Amino acid sequence: MSGRKFSLGLDYGTNSVRTVLVDVANGEEIATDVHEYETGEGGIILDPSDHNLARQNPADYLKGLQDSLKEVLSQARKADKDFDPEQIIGIGVDTTGSTPIPVGNDGTPLAMLDEFRDNPNAHAWLWKDHTGHAEAGEITQLAEKEHPEYLAKCGGTYSSEWFFSKILHCLRTDPKVFDAAYTWVEHADYMTALLTGTTDPRKLKRCRCAAGHKAMVNANWGGYPAKDFLAKLDPKLRQLRETLGDKTYAIDQKAGDLTEEWAGKLGLKAGIPVAMGAFDAHLGGVGSGISIGKLVKIIGTSTCDMAVWPADKDLADVPGICGIVDGSILPGFWGLEAGQSAVGDIFNWFVNYIQPGGKAVGSHEALTEKAAKLKPGQSGLLALDWNNGNRTILVDQRLTGLLLGQTLHTTPEEIYRALIEATAYGALTIINRFEEYGVKISEVINCGGIAEKNPLIMQIYADVIGREMKIARSAQTCALGSAIAGAVVAGSVAGGYDNYADAQAAMCGMKDTIYKPIPENNKVYQQLYPLYKQLHDAFGLGSFSGKMANVMKQLLQIKDSVKA
Amino acid sequence: MSGRKFSLGLDYGTNSVRTVLVDVANGEEIATDVHEYETGEGGIILDPSDHNLARQNPADYLKGLQDSLKEVLSQARKADKDFDPEQIIGIGVDTTGSTPIPVGNDGTPLAMLDEFRDNPNAHAWLWKDHTGHAEAGEITQLAEKEHPEYLAKCGGTYSSEWFFSKILHCLRTDPKVFDAAYTWVEHADYMTALLTGTTDPRKLKRCRCAAGHKAMVNANWGGYPAKDFLAKLDPKLRQLRETLGDKTYAIDQKAGDLTEEWAGKLGLKAGIPVAMGAFDAHLGGVGSGISIGKLVKIIGTSTCDMAVWPADKDLADVPGICGIVDGSILPGFWGLEAGQSAVGDIFNWFVNYIQPGGKAVGSHEALTEKAAKLKPGQSGLLALDWNNGNRTILVDQRLTGLLLGQTLHTTPEEIYRALIEATAYGALTIINRFEEYGVKISEVINCGGIAEKNPLIMQIYADVIGREMKIARSAQTCALGSAIAGAVVAGSVAGGYDNYADAQAAMCGMKDTIYKPIPENNKVYQQLYPLYKQLHDAFGLGSFSGKMANVMKQLLQIKDSVKA
Repeated sequence: MSGRKFSLGLDYGTNSVRTVLVDVANGEEIATDVHEYETGEGGIILDPSDHNLARQNPADYLKGLQDSLKEVLSQARKADKDFDPEQIIGIGVDTTGSTPIPVGNDGTPLAMLDEFRDNPNAHAWLWKDHTGHAEAGEITQLAEKEHPEYLAKCGGTYSSEWFFSKILHCLRTDPKVFDAAYTWVEHADYMTALLTGTTDPRKLKRCRCAAGHKAMVNANWGGYPAKDFLAKLDPKLRQLRETLGDKTYAIDQKAGDLTEEWAGKLGLKAGIPVAMGAFDAHLGGVGSGISIGKLVKIIGTSTCDMAVWPADKDLADVPGICGIVDGSILPGFWGLEAGQSAVGDIFNWFVNYIQPGGKAVGSHEALTEKAAKLKPGQSGLLALDWNNGNRTILVDQRLTGLLLGQTLHTTPEEIYRALIEATAYGALTIINRFEEYGVKISEVINCGGIAEKNPLIMQIYADVIGREMKIARSAQTCALGSAIAGAVVAGSVAGGYDNYADAQAAMCGMKDTIYKPIPENNKVYQQLYPLYKQLHDAFGLGSFSGKMANVMKQLLQIKDSVKA
Repeated sequence: MSGRKFSLGLDYGTNSVRTVLVDVANGEEIATDVHEYETGEGGIILDPSDHNLARQNPADYLKGLQDSLKEVLSQARKADKDFDPEQIIGIGVDTTGSTPIPVGNDGTPLAMLDEFRDNPNAHAWLWKDHTGHAEAGEITQLAEKEHPEYLAKCGGTYSSEWFFSKILHCLRTDPKVFDAAYTWVEHADYMTALLTGTTDPRKLKRCRCAAGHKAMVNANWGGYPAKDFLAKLDPKLRQLRETLGDKTYAIDQKAGDLTEEWAGKLGLKAGIPVAMGAFDAHLGGVGSGISIGKLVKIIGTSTCDMAVWPADKDLADVPGICGIVDGSILPGFWGLEAGQSAVGDIFNWFVNYIQPGGKAVGSHEALTEKAAKLKPGQSGLLALDWNNGNRTILVDQRLTGLLLGQTLHTTPEEIYRALIEATAYGALTIINRFEEYGVKISEVINCGGIAEKNPLIMQIYADVIGREMKIARSAQTCALGSAIAGAVVAGSVAGGYDNYADAQAAMCGMKDTIYKPIPENNKVYQQLYPLYKQLHDAFGLGSFSGKMANVMKQLLQIKDSVKA
């Protein structure tokens, strides 16, 4: 056994769980495994008659944990012949969210009971489940009237993706499930409770990240929303509120120690400290080296855009972002979360649903190659990136896509590029919103598959956003962030770190490639963006900065100027 | 030789010339031939670097005439063993337009001279050539200032598709061609002049239809626009004006008699009367049985929508339509022309350029079959039918397409249906415009390939427009209309007719199938159309009837209501 110390990061994503074993000294990932969930389509339980529904089977989370750990330990032994599980000093966990799970009196997910095994409502309500959109509207309306402060910290609108929208929708549409649930537990909290033997709802520790960003928890009003407020939505929510407690735990806190039982199942040493959970994007921010002035964009099917701001400095309530929560990303900082409801999913829609030119001609690779040859503005096309609604800054999941400027000669690659550009405009809109409220963004760090693999998209982002695009070194920034959380709860005594700054300095890094704005492209995008903003405000807010008729004509003028 | 009498109809379309030999007694088409033009792509000379350019080779018109006549006469002999070309009593000709041809001092198209053989500017400027869009704007502006009456009869805007826009563009961009041309002759006038030996520009008869609809000719100001007006656009146009004369000839007038030379070339008897030419759509109206209250829609790559109104009754200047011309369709009636710049071309674009699902899956047939299963409103999509601009009622060729309402689940067939619906909304907008100005439309007669072959499109039109859709009996209504013109200039003495009413009563008919509006579909389209109109007015005129933000949300409400 060498002197190396390792931390284990578990990252529960939308379709799979990734597990990494990281060298605490330098962030080296010595073993990585990706385990796909087994239930449903790509791990998601769908309803063909209701596109809003997206659920997961909690049993997949457990199976994934065990299979993945076995693989990672086996890889670790191959990578380092001296490797011993005893060298693992901490465990961190991140998950998607808000992904609440209804659990029984003893903390068992209802989906694991025979009675509810086939009922999607008894399963985990995945972050992208939008069945509660009517309830979200109801919660927003009531909060606007009675507790506007609840909304101020989460962008001004309560989303259908969030905790209470989902629970209230279950209460309204499947009271049998609601009544059978003792309480509802976020996926992240369920995992840390399981590993530390605290699934009993009376012992459960709930993480600050999920509670603050998705459940209107804030120290100003002593935690979760008031009982009377929830009771006005439905009297039964008063009772639910009782089960939630008032205390939540930030990311630098320990959830507990690994139990004998799970140590045995996983082949680990009992007693390893387990950090409080957090959402994948927040720990992805940590793993990407987030700090003041650095926006971390985690680009996948959707994006999360993360920023931090010192907790002891003034910060306005930024309208339209998904939350401002003390300690949700880094202790001692406000964690600010924003995001786009679909990015990669829009490109996937075009390739998989529209299938331009058929499967061979219309692949991402083929379209990217052709789209790369187009100049900004050349197609005369302009799109809105709302095929899955708009998370930030409009917080409206029911918005839809728009494509404008088609002629009889418009090609698939032109549309593909217009969709990429639309997501870049959406990204710029978020950055502008941060800066309008004083959160200066001087640097953009990207991570996720698209950031790593698609230079065209990154170059367009640099050109549209007018800032350098950097790429985080790790391909698994969320899991790395979890491992960092594990190293911090272990502390320096155990060979870890006593604070995040030290841990990030040692364990994070950037790739060498930096995408810099090309001035002539940026110049065209500076003409195009105001047109996007005009459509954005007209269709998103009903407000206009000019005549809509100009949008089509100005696009053609830009097209002509690009040609010349 | 039996007692049957025949009339010959020549129909010069965008890609081919169709020739029909028609029994004057009952309209029976005993011989038909379609001859594809040979030059360019589908008979059109294109410029890959300028999508606005579309030209044709005048030599193709002559070749087509000879080859096609030979084939028709041969078919006629097979169909009727007693057939003798002596039985042909009249000839009518229609062409596309405005399709002006620059000709030399002796009337020979410049394109037939060695010097200009390879210069597209010396060829026929096909109706859909939009290279003169800047010049169209210039003409409109000057007319608005100095002669608003010129515009009042052609919808308020002078189009880039029309006579003077094209000629002025040639003058500006290729003065060598302009200077070499003694005058410019519409394709229709060139054909009748050729057959009757009057190609000499000093003898040439110009038809009322082309002159009135496309060249601002009107009896109120004594024919073509004033010399001073044209000279202000460019001094050289004064000289051109001299060559145009002042007299134009309506459709019931004779252009002349078939010359010995052409009779010999075509295998016909010399001296057969040739009717004045007209545009294909106008004679298509005639061949479809047009009369008061009946709108004839000729649906192909684009549409022409034709109506008539008694010349002795009051008629307002209808803004946005392509012309109100005395005798352009039927003698004694105002001929009203409107149209959509693209209909079939939009569906072709989607199938041929976007190729959803590849060629096998994304054919018109496959998409139509799937689209037919969708209910109105179900997709949540809404499109504007402007991929090739908007001819009526906005008269703006530079407008572009729009698709709204996409989600991550939107399918090709949903888009295909939305594009069909968009063209139906465009068709309804034209009908509404006619009726707003007192031209009541009680019946819609459709003709052209789409009307004959696509029941889904016709049913959607019935459902959207809220009127019965009838289909003209003839598959060649334009050529039939030309044959009717031939029968009328022949007169009853020769076995033809002395007026159009008698000729149409004998020679036109409807198919048995009538598409009737389905009330429940019509009800949904009555909700959707105001949303289309809102986009139409916002993007086309810059005016709003409400908040654009409502458009997306109301589509979803309709979608939800359709599902329930």
